[in-house]
Amino acid sequence: MLSKQMLYNLENSSAIRQMFIEGQELAARVGAENVYDFSLGNPAAPVPEAFTQALLDIIQTEDSLTLHGYMNNAGYPEVRQAVADSLNRRFGLSLGMENIIMTNGAAGAINIVFKAILDVEDDVVVFRPYFGEYRSYVSNWHGRCVEVDPLLPSFQPDLEDFERKIDERTKAVILNNPVNPTGVVYSAETLESIARILERKQAEYRHEIYLLVDEPYRELAYDGVDVPYVTKFYGNTFVIYSFSKTLSVPGERIGYVVVPPAMADWENMANAVTVANRVCGFINAPSLLQKAVARCLDEKCDIGFYDRNRRLLYDALTGMGFQCVRPEGAFYLFVRSPEENEKQFVARAKKHNLILVSGSTFSMPGYVRLAYCVKTDMIQRSLPAFEDLAREYNLIP
Amino acid sequence: MLSKQMLYNLENSSAIRQMFIEGQELAARVGAENVYDFSLGNPAAPVPEAFTQALLDIIQTEDSLTLHGYMNNAGYPEVRQAVADSLNRRFGLSLGMENIIMTNGAAGAINIVFKAILDVEDDVVVFRPYFGEYRSYVSNWHGRCVEVDPLLPSFQPDLEDFERKIDERTKAVILNNPVNPTGVVYSAETLESIARILERKQAEYRHEIYLLVDEPYRELAYDGVDVPYVTKFYGNTFVIYSFSKTLSVPGERIGYVVVPPAMADWENMANAVTVANRVCGFINAPSLLQKAVARCLDEKCDIGFYDRNRRLLYDALTGMGFQCVRPEGAFYLFVRSPEENEKQFVARAKKHNLILVSGSTFSMPGYVRLAYCVKTDMIQRSLPAFEDLAREYNLIP
Repeated sequence: MLSKQMLYNLENSSAIRQMFIEGQELAARVGAENVYDFSLGNPAAPVPEAFTQALLDIIQTEDSLTLHGYMNNAGYPEVRQAVADSLNRRFGLSLGMENIIMTNGAAGAINIVFKAILDVEDDVVVFRPYFGEYRSYVSNWHGRCVEVDPLLPSFQPDLEDFERKIDERTKAVILNNPVNPTGVVYSAETLESIARILERKQAEYRHEIYLLVDEPYRELAYDGVDVPYVTKFYGNTFVIYSFSKTLSVPGERIGYVVVPPAMADWENMANAVTVANRVCGFINAPSLLQKAVARCLDEKCDIGFYDRNRRLLYDALTGMGFQCVRPEGAFYLFVRSPEENEKQFVARAKKHNLILVSGSTFSMPGYVRLAYCVKTDMIQRSLPAFEDLAREYNLIP
Repeated sequence: MLSKQMLYNLENSSAIRQMFIEGQELAARVGAENVYDFSLGNPAAPVPEAFTQALLDIIQTEDSLTLHGYMNNAGYPEVRQAVADSLNRRFGLSLGMENIIMTNGAAGAINIVFKAILDVEDDVVVFRPYFGEYRSYVSNWHGRCVEVDPLLPSFQPDLEDFERKIDERTKAVILNNPVNPTGVVYSAETLESIARILERKQAEYRHEIYLLVDEPYRELAYDGVDVPYVTKFYGNTFVIYSFSKTLSVPGERIGYVVVPPAMADWENMANAVTVANRVCGFINAPSLLQKAVARCLDEKCDIGFYDRNRRLLYDALTGMGFQCVRPEGAFYLFVRSPEENEKQFVARAKKHNLILVSGSTFSMPGYVRLAYCVKTDMIQRSLPAFEDLAREYNLIP
């Protein structure tokens, strides 16, 4: 007696979680220390001490009834102001508190934005490969995903294909920067090109096309690469942010959405997104967590930790003959499968106790994703297993 | 460029919040101490000290990466087990941790259950008067609300009308116990009758009809009245619970849903609700809050505080000639408007600085709701204003 939508969701239920469960079953059989689980994007860099101190200080000093009570569905005014101030300072923007809506992480934010803008059978354009849950978020509101191909081997978006895929049913475009699962960072040039195409298409079809920029990995960028702030290029942009990766707190569900002043009729849209936050059942972002992140807007977990893992794993795997785009952000490697059907490659890797995720999950068969947000020690111990695997495929030069 | 659904939500946007805002505007004009705001169901009894201590202890003793990290989308196993144990102990049930899914409050729980079971144009039966947000939760998943009339003046459900309103399109029934906005508590006899009717209708239409019992006010019951646990009467029951009122923590968004072993195919349903928790964007209930409530399952705010307010306001208003069902639970009075159009009564009350909410919000025109989860002192100071109002309507005996 499940709904048709739910049956669809169950059929397409997260292959990532499935691999994580298989990894745990394997660990129970052969010992956790002998399983090399690269399946889940669960942060491994320690939580900044400032976050813990902020929680303790807030709980000890603030009135508990106010601290844990209802506030405006968009969040505490002083929290929204602090977020706006921080963004203005860092990116030269002119946001007010009214432009910030605190949300239950990025997943909550994307859902309430889609709720506010998507009609049944509206199209949402996505760039392959992409986080598979976007499909669920779009289907919740009866929209349809339209996929744009990447350029290979760079995994930058194919902008000609992008332009072809937009038509009068296109209500929104969603992109992730830095990208899960490739680790690619879209440059200012790429984002400006996307903006120009969207401006042209808006004029052609005479309605807004909204861009959602999903930035949970914004702070996880390496080699000094720039992650541009997209509202500068395109007014009808929602910026989606989560503190999950920056502060290593994904279980706490805290993030925000920016509805910039450059968006058409932004006050109405900010109000709609706020009401969507309520009617979708979020009501508001968790109150204590709002206050805690407001005190940690300049804090980050140890990004160097992920950077060291990135170099170690990328250098080792490419040295063994595996092919992989060099990631500049996030904490994933997207490796080309040495055989066409990457699911067989995933199965063979598992025989070496290596838990990888099939690229089909990200609408990109022929590849696998490795999450390197793991203990460095596990990566080091896993390398002989990767070597054995490379030898099986005759990759080692 | 808002979606049609969103325009519907905005048009029907919470009149309760609207009155709260009007009350704040009035307070800015005439002084907060001169406004008697009975609009919002925001708890006023102090947060139990044990909750604050639980938060501090957890933050100071648990590993921060685990504490704030991802867990199973249904919640931490030990938290789910603690909730199951507590319910088993208190209500003589036989729940396991697999029957408990931790959620973002009751609003989140209702949405993920509807997501799991509602197809487009499925009917959901509701009992007038009811919390108006149910309409939004049903419309999120393109279901339709079918309203059952109450018996007057008791505000118990009209069971004959209930039976008439169920047909083959009925997928679910939702009830609130104790009831917002009337404070009525449904007795075991009433609930058993509802269960018998549903059993008969399930057999007649040969499909499951799910009962959602929304119990955020379960602990707020007075005069020793019993709030029966409905899974005992009807297997296909989802019990929805929130800690918002029990612990005075509505901003924290923490609750759970029970998928009982008596439900048809309950394992599949529990899995579906868990996946719905993820794909709707909640992912999981906030992690720190899960751990905190697990340590406070026997804690309550000072229920006596609400009871004293109840007696004070009920006795005073009925003494002035206002008509009102005597509430046995929650923290609301549902007062009959002395003129047919209760919106005019609300407007006239506002001239006396009394902020009430129109019964139309609850699909029950001709009545107004007063939330007495306020400082007792405010109730006392408001009584002369109510007296003036009663005199205007020639109510005072």
